Amino acid sequence: MKSIRTLVLLVLFSGTGAVAQRSKKPNIIVFLVDDMGWQDSSVPFWTKVTEFNKRYHTPNMERLAREGMKFTNAYAAPVCSPSRISLMTGMSAARHKVTNWTLYKDASVDVADSLLRPPMWNVNGISPVPGINNTAYVTPLPALLKDAGYYTIHCGKAHYAAMSTPAADPLTIGFDLNIAGHAAGGPGSYLGEENYGNEKDKPKVPWGVPGLQEYHGTSVFLTEALTVEGLKALEKPISDKKPFFLYMSHYAVHVPYAADKRFIQKYKDAGLPEKEAQYASIVEGMDKSLGDIMNYLKEKNIDKNTIIIFMSDNGGFSQSPRAGKPHTQNLPLKAGKGSVYEGGIREPMLVKWPGVTKPGSSTDRYLIIEDFFPAILEMAGAKNYKTVQKVDGISFVDLIKNKKQSPDTRPLVWHFPNKWIAQDVAGINYRSAIRQGDWKLIYNLKTGSKELYNLKNDIGEQNDLSVKYAEKTSEMAVLLAEKLKSYDAQMPVYKKTGKPVPMPDQSF
Amino acid sequence: MKSIRTLVLLVLFSGTGAVAQRSKKPNIIVFLVDDMGWQDSSVPFWTKVTEFNKRYHTPNMERLAREGMKFTNAYAAPVCSPSRISLMTGMSAARHKVTNWTLYKDASVDVADSLLRPPMWNVNGISPVPGINNTAYVTPLPALLKDAGYYTIHCGKAHYAAMSTPAADPLTIGFDLNIAGHAAGGPGSYLGEENYGNEKDKPKVPWGVPGLQEYHGTSVFLTEALTVEGLKALEKPISDKKPFFLYMSHYAVHVPYAADKRFIQKYKDAGLPEKEAQYASIVEGMDKSLGDIMNYLKEKNIDKNTIIIFMSDNGGFSQSPRAGKPHTQNLPLKAGKGSVYEGGIREPMLVKWPGVTKPGSSTDRYLIIEDFFPAILEMAGAKNYKTVQKVDGISFVDLIKNKKQSPDTRPLVWHFPNKWIAQDVAGINYRSAIRQGDWKLIYNLKTGSKELYNLKNDIGEQNDLSVKYAEKTSEMAVLLAEKLKSYDAQMPVYKKTGKPVPMPDQSF
Repeated sequence: MKSIRTLVLLVLFSGTGAVAQRSKKPNIIVFLVDDMGWQDSSVPFWTKVTEFNKRYHTPNMERLAREGMKFTNAYAAPVCSPSRISLMTGMSAARHKVTNWTLYKDASVDVADSLLRPPMWNVNGISPVPGINNTAYVTPLPALLKDAGYYTIHCGKAHYAAMSTPAADPLTIGFDLNIAGHAAGGPGSYLGEENYGNEKDKPKVPWGVPGLQEYHGTSVFLTEALTVEGLKALEKPISDKKPFFLYMSHYAVHVPYAADKRFIQKYKDAGLPEKEAQYASIVEGMDKSLGDIMNYLKEKNIDKNTIIIFMSDNGGFSQSPRAGKPHTQNLPLKAGKGSVYEGGIREPMLVKWPGVTKPGSSTDRYLIIEDFFPAILEMAGAKNYKTVQKVDGISFVDLIKNKKQSPDTRPLVWHFPNKWIAQDVAGINYRSAIRQGDWKLIYNLKTGSKELYNLKNDIGEQNDLSVKYAEKTSEMAVLLAEKLKSYDAQMPVYKKTGKPVPMPDQSF
Repeated sequence: MKSIRTLVLLVLFSGTGAVAQRSKKPNIIVFLVDDMGWQDSSVPFWTKVTEFNKRYHTPNMERLAREGMKFTNAYAAPVCSPSRISLMTGMSAARHKVTNWTLYKDASVDVADSLLRPPMWNVNGISPVPGINNTAYVTPLPALLKDAGYYTIHCGKAHYAAMSTPAADPLTIGFDLNIAGHAAGGPGSYLGEENYGNEKDKPKVPWGVPGLQEYHGTSVFLTEALTVEGLKALEKPISDKKPFFLYMSHYAVHVPYAADKRFIQKYKDAGLPEKEAQYASIVEGMDKSLGDIMNYLKEKNIDKNTIIIFMSDNGGFSQSPRAGKPHTQNLPLKAGKGSVYEGGIREPMLVKWPGVTKPGSSTDRYLIIEDFFPAILEMAGAKNYKTVQKVDGISFVDLIKNKKQSPDTRPLVWHFPNKWIAQDVAGINYRSAIRQGDWKLIYNLKTGSKELYNLKNDIGEQNDLSVKYAEKTSEMAVLLAEKLKSYDAQMPVYKKTGKPVPMPDQSF
């Protein structure tokens, strides 16, 4: 009996060794930018090169686009927490119910409205343990990657859960290392001179960026400090010969804007107003970080085994302190952050997967942020993983490999039963939307009105076709209602009666 | 081997039989009245007989008091859902977080406030299964009683959970039978002539009382219909010789008031205003139900093995449509339903446990509604039961048996981080409170102010001692903060900043 056991062990070990040889796990870097718009780059994501593409200088994004694949129809949620949590869980925001941004425990950041109030959404974000009020209890992406053998690094903005809940600390959701991440979703300041928003000798809650004390009082811009620390963190897995997952989650290009002195002069010289010049300098500083990472990978000779995924979490910020007419900062797209119009949800996305993505290629097939979860796990070779949550996302690996040739017919859904800003303008606040093929329906949860657009020849959502194509409108409304119900989506409620707003297929 | 097994089985069976002989499980009836005040009875619960004791006629409560034990310091939460859920779970309302009343899924019934908004409380009530948003996931009392061998009957108002969630149906929380219970916490109408608030041929959502169709169109008052049906339901366990748990949960004496024609005339003759006469008639109709049940038990010869616990779920309603000056309906107690003053939380409670309670006895020891859960399970002989929730309540069986002789030092806590009505008056809305011994501290969550009373000689909470006994005030504030934190209590939040209101031991 002993000899049989020895034989079995031998077979098992040699088998494992062989598998490891055959499929060396790729390193994976998710380079996630905050609040970056679809046009905030010198890489054109539209069919035309716009004035914005000429304004911004992102040479390293251009390089990534040359070496990898461009996605022109990549979507996220209209604000940050819903997107980030979809990425980390694979769930539609309508299902995970972290539909607005999180910060304080048990407290909704929704602005007061005269008619509606938000549903009891998951204001506390996600939780890796059950039983915590108003959290989505989930098996998070980093934990699964860790299980799959990855060394997992969080660097930058976390924003997974409210203060004083477990997932406020990235280490609780499966990260081996946390650099500068906590509950808050924005930086107190980008400036080392301002200690990134902290007091000189103690952290300032909630906005002071945690950690990074050695940069306090220096002139190092936050983006640079995170890049240096993020790359330092790669030394360990490289020397351990372990695959790594680097979630490079920049605080850039979120408010509060400040000049990245390394880059601002040329934007001033170009005549941009002060705040716009600052914004462009933050964009370029973020782009430098991407370049530094690409250079580092090459230097360490691991670039051929490292996947880089570039993405933003929602549309570009389109209100004050941005200069110019509000909600024009993402043209040709309508509106910006907070909106279910394209300006609020369409993102600049690039993927370089050496040996898989065709250099300089592009796809106009659509995908949405919850698709990152299964895609990254597929890239990592994780199979048969178990999640406590239902995963809505669909891996885009087939899309990368150009295996999907049929037209897009899958419905994509956005659901924002919340009030983000005081004014109900530009498709912001209390909206749901659905895209199927080139058709897109917007449902105003406050008025009951529906708008129908055909994005093929109206990317700017200027021609409402809901009356002209009434049948299509009602077909899309029924589909949206079905999807929302399947997600157990929450509706805002009438303050007066406490009754929920009707589904889009019900009369108002 | 076979013979040993037989022997073991024989021993086991004879053992079980012996135990069953020794401790025949008592039947348990919880007779829960809705919105009944401490003085709405001809049984005096205070040291003096009041005008209210003279106004109301409750001869069957008098009989129950003669045959059982009176509790003069029994407490509930200031509104119904928190109390009912504490009873069903053993949890403090601060812990289960169903802090206001429930109805629609995902929707808070809180009234809008200029300064604060409520925390993300459990608007969906309790749930016997995990993973349902904004519910307290719990092992409910009826399920445990069922496990302990009881036939469990729900009769009347349920109000355990929001519409379209599992526990809206009492059968999901361990009841074998449900008579007229659903999500709503009030009756559409008391009148058979009005089909208890339903349309003639179909239920009217949300307030129409479900079931009871055979009484539609008759002149049977709701209280009577529930009594008849509740007693009918006892036939099965009696004939099956199974112990029963009857949760006799009257919709009475909740609004909307109507005349119980069997009793109203004498109150009119006494000169009461119309609404007050109606109210008194509903109280007497409820009292008749108690008498009918007591008679039935005697008739069936099970009265000596049946425990009756009489209780109300919060203080008497003290606003329009009640007549008279608002918030004087519970004098000598201050305020009424919704308030953390005594008028909102002190309840008429009677217990008859044949052979255990001393007939005609009384105790002024205090207890609170979450204590019902462990007490009832102790009465039922349930031991080593498991609950997914942490139980805060302490059984009052020792208190019944007069085993507790030391003075009360246990802190009792109330927490209402919600806004029930539009006006912040009479201790209603955004309050916490704590009682220890005769001291009681009230914490105003909106203004930060604290009041201190000594109930021994100031049951009406008229003399605020917070300045005179500043040290006691701050000691009680620290104790309240400790308790609230131990319950993981939710605080309301400032609309402007999203920050939670400080704990009572923090500066405002």
